[in-house]
Amino acid sequence: MRTSQYLLATVKETPADAEVVSHKLMLRAGLVRKLAAGLYTWLPMGLRVLRKVERIVRDEMDRAGAQEVLMPAVQPAELWQESGRWEKYGPELLRLKDRHHREFCFGPTHEEVITDLIRREIKSYRQLPANFYQIQTKFRDEIRPRFGVMRAREFLMKDAYSFHADVASLEETYRVMYETYSRIFARLGLAFRPVEADTGAIGGYASHEFHVLADSGEDAIAICSNCDYAANVELAPARAPVGKRPAPAQPMQAIDTPGQHTIDEVSRYLQVDASRTVKTLLVRGTGGVVALALRGDHELNAVKAEKLPQVEKPLRFVTPAEVELAAGCEPGSIGPVGLRVAVIADEAAARLADFVCGANANGRHLVNVNWGRDLPEPEVADLRNVVAGDPCPADGCQGTLSIRRGIEVGHIFQLGTKYSEALQATVLDEGGRAVVMPMGCYGIGVSRVVAAAIEQNHDERGIRWPDAIAPYRVALVPIGYHKSPAVREAVDRLYADLRAAGHEVLLDDRNERPGVMFADMDLIGIPHRLVLGDKGLANGTIEYKARTAEAARELPLASLLPELKRLFANPAAPG
Amino acid sequence: MRTSQYLLATVKETPADAEVVSHKLMLRAGLVRKLAAGLYTWLPMGLRVLRKVERIVRDEMDRAGAQEVLMPAVQPAELWQESGRWEKYGPELLRLKDRHHREFCFGPTHEEVITDLIRREIKSYRQLPANFYQIQTKFRDEIRPRFGVMRAREFLMKDAYSFHADVASLEETYRVMYETYSRIFARLGLAFRPVEADTGAIGGYASHEFHVLADSGEDAIAICSNCDYAANVELAPARAPVGKRPAPAQPMQAIDTPGQHTIDEVSRYLQVDASRTVKTLLVRGTGGVVALALRGDHELNAVKAEKLPQVEKPLRFVTPAEVELAAGCEPGSIGPVGLRVAVIADEAAARLADFVCGANANGRHLVNVNWGRDLPEPEVADLRNVVAGDPCPADGCQGTLSIRRGIEVGHIFQLGTKYSEALQATVLDEGGRAVVMPMGCYGIGVSRVVAAAIEQNHDERGIRWPDAIAPYRVALVPIGYHKSPAVREAVDRLYADLRAAGHEVLLDDRNERPGVMFADMDLIGIPHRLVLGDKGLANGTIEYKARTAEAARELPLASLLPELKRLFANPAAPG
Repeated sequence: MRTSQYLLATVKETPADAEVVSHKLMLRAGLVRKLAAGLYTWLPMGLRVLRKVERIVRDEMDRAGAQEVLMPAVQPAELWQESGRWEKYGPELLRLKDRHHREFCFGPTHEEVITDLIRREIKSYRQLPANFYQIQTKFRDEIRPRFGVMRAREFLMKDAYSFHADVASLEETYRVMYETYSRIFARLGLAFRPVEADTGAIGGYASHEFHVLADSGEDAIAICSNCDYAANVELAPARAPVGKRPAPAQPMQAIDTPGQHTIDEVSRYLQVDASRTVKTLLVRGTGGVVALALRGDHELNAVKAEKLPQVEKPLRFVTPAEVELAAGCEPGSIGPVGLRVAVIADEAAARLADFVCGANANGRHLVNVNWGRDLPEPEVADLRNVVAGDPCPADGCQGTLSIRRGIEVGHIFQLGTKYSEALQATVLDEGGRAVVMPMGCYGIGVSRVVAAAIEQNHDERGIRWPDAIAPYRVALVPIGYHKSPAVREAVDRLYADLRAAGHEVLLDDRNERPGVMFADMDLIGIPHRLVLGDKGLANGTIEYKARTAEAARELPLASLLPELKRLFANPAAPG
Repeated sequence: MRTSQYLLATVKETPADAEVVSHKLMLRAGLVRKLAAGLYTWLPMGLRVLRKVERIVRDEMDRAGAQEVLMPAVQPAELWQESGRWEKYGPELLRLKDRHHREFCFGPTHEEVITDLIRREIKSYRQLPANFYQIQTKFRDEIRPRFGVMRAREFLMKDAYSFHADVASLEETYRVMYETYSRIFARLGLAFRPVEADTGAIGGYASHEFHVLADSGEDAIAICSNCDYAANVELAPARAPVGKRPAPAQPMQAIDTPGQHTIDEVSRYLQVDASRTVKTLLVRGTGGVVALALRGDHELNAVKAEKLPQVEKPLRFVTPAEVELAAGCEPGSIGPVGLRVAVIADEAAARLADFVCGANANGRHLVNVNWGRDLPEPEVADLRNVVAGDPCPADGCQGTLSIRRGIEVGHIFQLGTKYSEALQATVLDEGGRAVVMPMGCYGIGVSRVVAAAIEQNHDERGIRWPDAIAPYRVALVPIGYHKSPAVREAVDRLYADLRAAGHEVLLDDRNERPGVMFADMDLIGIPHRLVLGDKGLANGTIEYKARTAEAARELPLASLLPELKRLFANPAAPG
């Protein structure tokens, strides 16, 4: 493509309303434009990337035996009423009425529609398993759409739904999808991790999220240095510390800590590490207030706390007035000693000896406190978020965890019979009995992948596309195209040769200064740049620079094509 | 693909609610399923066809230099208010409100959105011409959706919009699009005609429709036997008859025609051909009632009549009471002789001599009437629909017209400045002056093409896909796959070989009777069928049958691949 015949909508200024780097760069590089809140037009350059992502996703879904379908975006309310989601789904569901005042929605997901289709079309276990996918525009009416296409209202999604005669078959397809997703993100050229995930609102009993790793990611992920283990921090179990609790060494003592409320303040005031303090949090329980004790340097994990039978769901802290009633002090001075409510301690807090905690009196703390001596042994549970350095929870693994940030781009679920039960989607099994089909569902945020790829791959000059999804792989920048007939002729010939050899080339034939063209090609993020001018022509060389390399180098013009073949086969080769 | 691993949703019974053959066959062949009125899910087999149409459209649009974009389906009301269409567009526009009660619509077309984009992005004539297209799901809230995907509410459309610095450039791009559309429909393997068309509600000043020819088509098209000329019957000019009007031969005479009202009745009663009678229609005029006189065998063309300055738009017939007032009789006996209102005669009616017409008295007609003798020479105009046998209106052409039926699948318009004026989309011209950009727009109903292709290509057994858009090109039907290991082995090997050679093969490996498999492959419409069983294996032959051929024939198994290559290169070769 020639830039002179292309909507090259690059912008120098950073747009004011863009918060994250991918949003800024997608606007600056001319990939998208905002139509309204959460609604984006994909310009030619951006759409090429989107289509490449789509193609890789389709290719791998086909290879995995999934069948592509296309369901309507507009769905009748009746099906959502049948599944019970018409009432339950919040205002993110864009509801609408047609000219006859019948109710519909703009589908944010298609469990109901596919389940309705399959209950009509599939009657026998012999037709199973079957996995159907589509790549389609969805709508979620986010209250505050932001981050560009990362959290848009209208977006492109690949959603797939599998149907089975039994759970073993579901588990097998789930495994195939897990591998398919891993292949997809590897082919996209992205650093990613599949992580164990909570199933959230969609329901079901097993699920993994696929995260593109990027410092700007919204989710914290615990990743093992040694094995495959990765999980959302919310879900990663903290292993109990090894070894036994040290014996008490000092007598317990109360100390005045005037004006010291937070763990930071207290540990600084007493010159003791936060890891040797215990914080006590009072929450509502099923049988009255419950105290949760954690090490001062650890964070309470609400998902884990909510799994305790004594704790009310959703987790709620008691009010300061209730703290006063239960502990006789303000929240900053609570401690487990002498507390008249049940105490549940995190494994790590329970392993401390000679620790510091609140004295249940304003402005006072206790030091050298010991479980079993100064207060009863607590009930013990895993209550905290894992932190970097924690041991990997995988069986037999000796690795340690690090915490990385990720952007969720894919999600696979074992849905079970939630929808097939509600819609009575059954097949006859081998014995002629009607069985409700277990289902799986598998999503990839296709447009979100584009933004996530940028979050992971950019520098101060712009985007650095992985080869597989770059809008064009080669930027050809002539020096003097509009002045030197020799340059124009050589560049036009090279452009034709490169295209004939199957390369996707963006020829910058605008009458602009080289600096402007270089900056645009870097901003757009074309992985490979070739620069040709009179000087190179005279020497028989062409300047080559990888987008990721610091410096350019000269290649012999005569052997350029085989040389590029070598470079592209190994994009990580030193530039 | 193996049918055992595919949602082969063929149905024997003709669905009750399907009116047209394409709708019936799309349901029976398992291409689509209805979700709700005007909303269809594309099953895997149907989606393959849709994607092939899409690919050919994309390929040719790219080749023509158009740039692909993707605009949101959901559009803010503000832009439609700016263009004035928010009020004007009827209930076919699906209006909706988001959670913040802001108004949007599900776009039936994208003139506003693209014009808004381009007024922001394109500032100089140097960036023009530019042509942008998308292939996207649209919604039109038809009051009575029917004919399956032919007139669905949600459908897939290719829409393109071009922008220009002047009208000459628009005309040039229009010409390129005309040729591109012709290439697209030719590549799709369809018999089609570009026809001159009225621009209808979208406005503008030049337009062609592209029609797939099919007996079931909704539109009548006049096509020349000799030249390229084709036009919607509504728009085709009728040439004035050659030669002079014959001289009057008989004296005018009034005859009783009791109970004879219609042209058919009168011409039968008087034993005179309808082409020698004149019918007189009274319509509302800008200055009172106007009489339009046409030959009895011709039909009034409302579009042409509305172009007369004397006639009110829209065209309306007067009431029987007004007929009585103006002509002194019932509508069945009106005639131009002695009528006290302006008479405008169609060219053909004005050329008659010794004709029959109403006598402006109930139950009476006049015979041997002659213009200029028995009544004044009328004002003359082209007022009728052309009929088969009419001369071609193209300059210098000696051909005659035939009337064919067509299904509109594409439409190209020279929009002019309708939208760019309303949205103030201007560029600076060479002289630095702001000029409003003339626009063109170019649509193809991608999902409609699939239905139209079936309307044109089917027989009593099912669909007969053109090779280019068949879901699979080859059906491989084994005889005894589940009984004979030799057949299974040979068929599996052949399946692999055919795929390796690049053929799209549907292997029917179900455990069904051959008749069932043949019927399904014919219903689905796979263009080429191969049948292999023990007998063929013993003889070293394979049975080949083209979907369009009457009989099958044997091909040597050893040279099958080169033989298929030859057959596919020439799909019209005798089967």
